[in-house]
Amino acid sequence: MDRAYKLFEEQQLARGIDLKQVHEKLKSIRIETPSWGYVNQGTRFKTFEKMGMPRNTYEKMEDAAQVHKFTGICPAVALHIPWDKVEDYTNLKEHAGSLGISMGAINPNLFQENEYMLGSVCNIDSKIRRKATEHLLECVDIAKTVGSDVLSLWFADGTNYPGQGPIRQRVQWMYECLKETYDALTPNMRMLIEYKFYEPAFYHTDLADWGMAFNMANKLGKQAEVLVDTGHHAQGTNIEHIVAYLIGEKKLGGFHFNSRKYGDDDLIVGSVNPYELFLIFYQILDAAADQDPAIQTTANNIAYMIDQSHNIEDKIPAMIRSVLNVQTQYAKALLVNLAEVRAAQEKQDVLGAEQAVREAFEMDVTPLLRAVREEMGVPCDPMSAYLQSGYGISILSRG
Amino acid sequence: MDRAYKLFEEQQLARGIDLKQVHEKLKSIRIETPSWGYVNQGTRFKTFEKMGMPRNTYEKMEDAAQVHKFTGICPAVALHIPWDKVEDYTNLKEHAGSLGISMGAINPNLFQENEYMLGSVCNIDSKIRRKATEHLLECVDIAKTVGSDVLSLWFADGTNYPGQGPIRQRVQWMYECLKETYDALTPNMRMLIEYKFYEPAFYHTDLADWGMAFNMANKLGKQAEVLVDTGHHAQGTNIEHIVAYLIGEKKLGGFHFNSRKYGDDDLIVGSVNPYELFLIFYQILDAAADQDPAIQTTANNIAYMIDQSHNIEDKIPAMIRSVLNVQTQYAKALLVNLAEVRAAQEKQDVLGAEQAVREAFEMDVTPLLRAVREEMGVPCDPMSAYLQSGYGISILSRG
Amino acid sequence: MDRAYKLFEEQQLARGIDLKQVHEKLKSIRIETPSWGYVNQGTRFKTFEKMGMPRNTYEKMEDAAQVHKFTGICPAVALHIPWDKVEDYTNLKEHAGSLGISMGAINPNLFQENEYMLGSVCNIDSKIRRKATEHLLECVDIAKTVGSDVLSLWFADGTNYPGQGPIRQRVQWMYECLKETYDALTPNMRMLIEYKFYEPAFYHTDLADWGMAFNMANKLGKQAEVLVDTGHHAQGTNIEHIVAYLIGEKKLGGFHFNSRKYGDDDLIVGSVNPYELFLIFYQILDAAADQDPAIQTTANNIAYMIDQSHNIEDKIPAMIRSVLNVQTQYAKALLVNLAEVRAAQEKQDVLGAEQAVREAFEMDVTPLLRAVREEMGVPCDPMSAYLQSGYGISILSRG
Amino acid sequence: MDRAYKLFEEQQLARGIDLKQVHEKLKSIRIETPSWGYVNQGTRFKTFEKMGMPRNTYEKMEDAAQVHKFTGICPAVALHIPWDKVEDYTNLKEHAGSLGISMGAINPNLFQENEYMLGSVCNIDSKIRRKATEHLLECVDIAKTVGSDVLSLWFADGTNYPGQGPIRQRVQWMYECLKETYDALTPNMRMLIEYKFYEPAFYHTDLADWGMAFNMANKLGKQAEVLVDTGHHAQGTNIEHIVAYLIGEKKLGGFHFNSRKYGDDDLIVGSVNPYELFLIFYQILDAAADQDPAIQTTANNIAYMIDQSHNIEDKIPAMIRSVLNVQTQYAKALLVNLAEVRAAQEKQDVLGAEQAVREAFEMDVTPLLRAVREEMGVPCDPMSAYLQSGYGISILSRG
Repeated sequence: MDRAYKLFEEQQLARGIDLKQVHEKLKSIRIETPSWGYVNQGTRFKTFEKMGMPRNTYEKMEDAAQVHKFTGICPAVALHIPWDKVEDYTNLKEHAGSLGISMGAINPNLFQENEYMLGSVCNIDSKIRRKATEHLLECVDIAKTVGSDVLSLWFADGTNYPGQGPIRQRVQWMYECLKETYDALTPNMRMLIEYKFYEPAFYHTDLADWGMAFNMANKLGKQAEVLVDTGHHAQGTNIEHIVAYLIGEKKLGGFHFNSRKYGDDDLIVGSVNPYELFLIFYQILDAAADQDPAIQTTANNIAYMIDQSHNIEDKIPAMIRSVLNVQTQYAKALLVNLAEVRAAQEKQDVLGAEQAVREAFEMDVTPLLRAVREEMGVPCDPMSAYLQSGYGISILSRG
Repeated sequence: MDRAYKLFEEQQLARGIDLKQVHEKLKSIRIETPSWGYVNQGTRFKTFEKMGMPRNTYEKMEDAAQVHKFTGICPAVALHIPWDKVEDYTNLKEHAGSLGISMGAINPNLFQENEYMLGSVCNIDSKIRRKATEHLLECVDIAKTVGSDVLSLWFADGTNYPGQGPIRQRVQWMYECLKETYDALTPNMRMLIEYKFYEPAFYHTDLADWGMAFNMANKLGKQAEVLVDTGHHAQGTNIEHIVAYLIGEKKLGGFHFNSRKYGDDDLIVGSVNPYELFLIFYQILDAAADQDPAIQTTANNIAYMIDQSHNIEDKIPAMIRSVLNVQTQYAKALLVNLAEVRAAQEKQDVLGAEQAVREAFEMDVTPLLRAVREEMGVPCDPMSAYLQSGYGISILSRG
Repeated sequence: MDRAYKLFEEQQLARGIDLKQVHEKLKSIRIETPSWGYVNQGTRFKTFEKMGMPRNTYEKMEDAAQVHKFTGICPAVALHIPWDKVEDYTNLKEHAGSLGISMGAINPNLFQENEYMLGSVCNIDSKIRRKATEHLLECVDIAKTVGSDVLSLWFADGTNYPGQGPIRQRVQWMYECLKETYDALTPNMRMLIEYKFYEPAFYHTDLADWGMAFNMANKLGKQAEVLVDTGHHAQGTNIEHIVAYLIGEKKLGGFHFNSRKYGDDDLIVGSVNPYELFLIFYQILDAAADQDPAIQTTANNIAYMIDQSHNIEDKIPAMIRSVLNVQTQYAKALLVNLAEVRAAQEKQDVLGAEQAVREAFEMDVTPLLRAVREEMGVPCDPMSAYLQSGYGISILSRG
Repeated sequence: MDRAYKLFEEQQLARGIDLKQVHEKLKSIRIETPSWGYVNQGTRFKTFEKMGMPRNTYEKMEDAAQVHKFTGICPAVALHIPWDKVEDYTNLKEHAGSLGISMGAINPNLFQENEYMLGSVCNIDSKIRRKATEHLLECVDIAKTVGSDVLSLWFADGTNYPGQGPIRQRVQWMYECLKETYDALTPNMRMLIEYKFYEPAFYHTDLADWGMAFNMANKLGKQAEVLVDTGHHAQGTNIEHIVAYLIGEKKLGGFHFNSRKYGDDDLIVGSVNPYELFLIFYQILDAAADQDPAIQTTANNIAYMIDQSHNIEDKIPAMIRSVLNVQTQYAKALLVNLAEVRAAQEKQDVLGAEQAVREAFEMDVTPLLRAVREEMGVPCDPMSAYLQSGYGISILSRG
C-alpha cells in the first residue's frame, strides 16, 4: 500500500495537485448521519423487520457513533422530532458526547399526525397551522438545548388533485409560519429549507423545486438557506447545475444525500450515478476557489447530511457505505485540476475541458483514502473493520 | 334534461353515430372494483385513519355493493389474498350474491412477509420460491371456489442495487413458478400478468414493462395475458400505443385503472389526463371494429379493473368517482366516428384525423349517461345519490 | 344551434355562472401567433418541404392575417429577428395594418450564427457577448419602430459536457447583457424571459427553469417578467403550479403555447393533455379574481403567444387549430364556479373541490363559442370556413 | 508506468482476476464507428459548420481509419445509404482495405425523402412502402457487395397525433416489408432491429421499445435480433436490465452507443453516467460466463457500434474519446469478480454483492489499458497521440 500511495503521490505531483491541501480537506469534511437511518424503514408495501434495531434515541446514538468510529468524519447525528423526543435532552447530549458524537440538525415532523392530512403550515385551517408553528418553535428550542445550529425543514404539504387547495394562499401561509420560526432563531442558527418534486403529495407540492425554496429563503433573510436533497428532482434534472447556481446566489445551505433511479427511492448515495455526486463536489470545490470571498464562504459552509431510509440493507453497514461513497467522490473531485479546466474553457476546448474533469473521476483514490485514514487514526478499510468488530452481532440481543 | 338528450341525439345522428349501439355498449361494460380500495391506505410516510372502514371482507363486500348499486356497472369485486382470506369462501360468495355482486379477480400477495424481502418467485432461495408457488396455487383454488375466472398477478420482485440478484436466472425461476400455476388453471380461467416500472424494487423489477409480461405470457400459453396498470410506466410512455399493440398480438387481458402524475401515485383514474383514458378506449373500440374476429374477441374480452389506494379521499365516493370517470371517457370514445378517422388517414390528412378523434372527446356526454342510467334503473347522478343515501354516515358506527 | 345555446345558457345560469362576463372575456382574449409558424420547420432529421410557404415577412403577415380573419382573436404576430428582418419596418407595419394585424413580441435570435456555438450572452468570449448584446439592442430598436411593447427572450446558451463552461460566471455575463438591454427599454415595454429545460444544450441550459428566469427578472426590475413555454419542462412538472406561483409573485409575463409528450416536441397546443391547458387557465382566472389588485393586474396582463414549429401539418390550419384549442380550454375554465371550489376547500372536501373544477372541463363549449363568434362577426366554425375559403390553394402559386 | 502496471497486476492477482483473459478480451473487442459521425451534424436549431469535414465517403473512410490507427479496435465503419452511396462499392472497399479498415453495418435511410413524411415501411400508401422495401433490398445488396454481414435498421416511422395512423395495421405493414428483406439475407447475415422511444415521431413510434423490436425479430426468425441504442429509452429505464433480458432470450444483436441526459442527445458515450455503461458490460460478461453455451454465444457476438452526432465537438477526437470511454468501462467490467458476486447473492448479502460489482468500477484501469495498447502496437495515450499527429490540421485544407 505504501507503494501504491507513493505512486499516487508522484502522479498527482506531476498533475500539479496540492496533495497537502487534499489531505486537509479530506480530514475536515463532516457528514452528518440521520437518526432515522438506523431503524426499520419501508415502502408503502411493507416495512421488513430487521433484528437489532435501536429501541430508543440513546441506542440510535450508539449506532451512529459506530459510523463515526470507523470513518472518523461523522461526529454529528440529525434528530427527528418527535421520533427522537426524550425527556431530558441535556442527558441525551451527554450520552452522545460520551460516545464522541454530538447533535446535528433538528428535523421537525409535520406529516405523521392525522390533522396534517391536508397540510401543516399550508393547511387552510388556521388552528392546524398554529399547531404546526408551535412544533417548529419547539424544535428551535430543542436545537438551542442540544447545541444544534441547524433547523432542517421538509414539508409534506401539497395536494393530490386540482382544486384541492388554494395554491397562492398556501405560499403565504407557509411564509407566515416560517417567519415566526425564523424570528425565534438565535443569530448563529441556520434554517435550511428543503424542496421536493412530489410525494407524499401527488398533484402539487408547496415547495416543489429549488426555486420555491430559494424564494422563500430570500424572503426570510440571511439565516435561511436552501437544502438540496439529491433524490428530490424531476428525472433528467441537472443537480450540479442547481448546486452551482445556489452557491452563486450564496443561498446553498446543505445537502441531504441519497440516490434514486426512478422516484425518491432513498438508495445509498452514489450507487446509481456516482459521476453525478462527483460533479456536485466539483462544482462546490470550484466555488470554494472563487475570487469572491462570499462565494468561498458559502461553498465552505455547506452542511452535508445523509438522508436515506434503508429498506433491505443492514442499517449500520449501509450508512458506512454511504459515507464512504461520499468520501470517495469528494476525494476524486479534489483531484480535478481547476486551472486546467479553466484553461480549456478559455480556449473553447470542449473535449479538453471535459477530459480535465472526467480524468479525476477515473482515478483510484483508494491509496489516498487509506493514507488519510491512517493520519486520522481510523481503519484503512472502515467497512471490513466494522464487519469484523462484532458490533452488528452484539446488538442482536436488542431483539 | 329530456331536451338535452334530444339535442344530443340529433347531433350524433347527424354525425352518423349509431346511438343504439352506444347505449348497449354503455350498459354492458363492467368495471371491477378492488376490495383493498375500501380500506385505509397510505404512503410510506403515513396512513391516515378514516372512520367507518370495513372491518373484514364481508364489510368490504357491502361497501363495494354500494358502488354497484349507484352505478350499475360494478358487479364484481377483486379479492386480495391473504387480506381477504375468510374461513368459508362459499359463505362469502353467498354474502356477496345477496348484495348483488360477485367475486372478481383473485390477487395473490407475495410481498408482505419477511421472507419475501429479496423476492418471492424470483428469490434465489428455492424454499421461498416454493412457498410463493404454493400461495399461487392456493389462489387458483380460491378462484375455483368463489367462481372467479381471473388470476391477477403482480410481483414486487426486483432488486435495489446492481449485482444484488442474478437477473437472467430470476426470469427462469419466475417462469417455473408461473408454469406450475398456469397448469393448475381450469380451461375457462385466465392468468393476467401485470408489469411495473419500479417500486417497491428500485433498481430493477423482474417484470418491468409490457414486453417482459408479454414474453412470459407467450411462453405460458393461451390462457396467459398481459394486464396493463395505467400507473406503471415510465414518464412519457404512450400507454394507448401499448394497448393497441397488445390487442394486435391478441394478448391484452385486462387493466388496472388509476392515474399518476409522477410515480405510481394511485390517484383517481382520469384525474390527471382524462384524454389519455379516452385514447385508450378509442384504441380498444377501433380494435373491436377490426375485420379480424380474433382481434375483435380480444378487444371485447378485456377485464376492466380499478386499482387505487386512496390516501386522503373518502373511499366509497372516490371509487364511485373513479367508475364515473371511466364511464365518461368510454362514452366519449364511443362517439368517435371511426369511418371518418379512417377516411382522413387514407387521405394522409393529419389534422383531419386528429380532429375526428378529438371532437368526440370535447362533447358533453352527461345527457347520454343520464339516459343510459335511466334505462339501467340507477340514479342519473350516482355521486349525489350516494352522498344523499346516508350510507356513508351509517358506517361510521364501525368505528 | 340556437336551441343548443339556449340550453347551455340555462345550465350555466343554474350553476351561477355570469355568462355576460364569460362572453366579454372570450371576446377580449388575444393570442399572438409566431411568424415562424407559417414556414417550413423540421426536426434534426429532416425538414419536409411544403408548397405555398411564404417567401418573405410580408407574406408571413398575410398568412397570419388569415388566422385572425377566421378566429378574430389573433391580431398580432410575433417577429423573429433576423428571420423577419426587412429594409423598412414602417412599411412592414403598414402592410400588416392594412391586413388588420399588428406586430407583436420581438424575438431576437442568438443561436444561428457560427460564433454562438458555445454561447451568446454567456459566451466566455467577451466579443461574442458584445455582439449578442448589440443584437438585443437592435431588437429593442425594432420594437420601438414597429410599435411592439414586448421583447421576448429565449437563449440557447448552455453546455453539452461537464466542465465545458464556468456555470456561475455565465449567470453574471448574462445578467450584464440583459441589464444593458433592460436599460434601453422604454417604460411601456416588457422584457419576457423564457427558460428551457434542455435543447439545444444537452448538459446544462443557463436558464434551465422558472426559478432561474424568475431570479434574473427580479434582479433586472419591474419590466422584466417570466415567460412560460409549456413545452420547456421536465417530465411530470406541474406547470399550472408554476403559473399560479409566478402570478402570486407578480412576475408572470407571458406564455409560449405548444404541447409535448416527450421532449420539446412542439405539437399543437392542447393536443396531448387538454386538461393541463384548462388547469393553467383555471389558475389564471382564479388569480384574476383575487382580492389583491396587484395579483389581478398580473393575471389580466399575460401575453398569450403560440410558439410551435409544425413539421408535418399544414401551417395555417395548424395555427387555427392551435388557437381554437386555446380558446376552447379558456372557455371551459371560465365555467369553473370559483366560489364553489373555495367552499369545498374550506370544508376540506377533496372530492368536492376536484369535481367543481373538473365538471367545467367536461362541458361542451361549442354552443358558447359559436355564440361568441357570431357576436364577433367571425365564422362559427373557423376551421371549416378557412378550409373552404380557397386561401390554402391560392398560395400554392408561391411555389 | 511499468511500476503502476506491476502494482495493478499484483492487486488483481490478489483479487483472483485472470489478467491473461482480461488482456485477450481487451485486445479482441471491436467497436464500429459510423461514417456519419465524421461530418457536420446539428440540432434542429443549427448545424455548426466545422472546417476539414470529409467531402465524400472515401474521405470519411480516411478519418475513420485514424480512429482505428490510434485505438487499434475500430477496424470497421458503418455506412449510411444513400449518404455513403458511391458508384463503385468494390473500389470503396479496396480504398478502405488500403487504410486497414473494412465496411461494417449497412444502415438504410428511410426518413429523408419527402415521401416518407408520414412513414416509410408503415406508410398507409402501399407505393411508398414498396419504395421503402426496394431501398431495404438495395441495402442488402450493398452489404453483400462490400462484405458486410449486418443490416442495421432504424425507422423514423410513427405519428405526431392521436388518430393520425392505424397503429395495429402499421405493425403488419412493417412486418411485410421486413419479411421480404429478411428473406433476401444470406445465411451469414444478421438483421439488427433498433427501437426508439420518440423523435422524430412525437406521439407514437412504431418500434417504440425493446419489446416491439424483440417481437418483430422473433417473428422474422433467427437472423433477426434487437439492437439497443443507449439513448433511445424513457427516463429512468434500466438499460442493463434490458440487455441482460435480451441476452437471456438470445436476441441481443448489437449496440448503438451514445449518452443522453434528457432526450436522445447524442452525447459522447460514457459522458453522462459512466457507471451505467460499466453495468451494461457487467451484464454482458456475466452472460458470457453462463453455463448455457447459447447464452455465451449471444454474449460473445454482440456488434458494438458508436452512433453519435457530434454537434459542437471536433469529430475525430470526439470519436476517439467515445471509443476510449467504451474501452475503459469494458476494462473495468472485466475486473468484476463474478464468483464473488455470485457468492454474495447466494448469501442474500445485498451490500456485499453491490460492493463486489462497484469496486471494479472504482479501479483505475489506466495501467492496464496502457499495457494492452503496448501489446497491440498502438499509442498508450491514443488521444494525445492523435492530437499531436497533425492529421487534424492536415484535413483543414479540405475546406
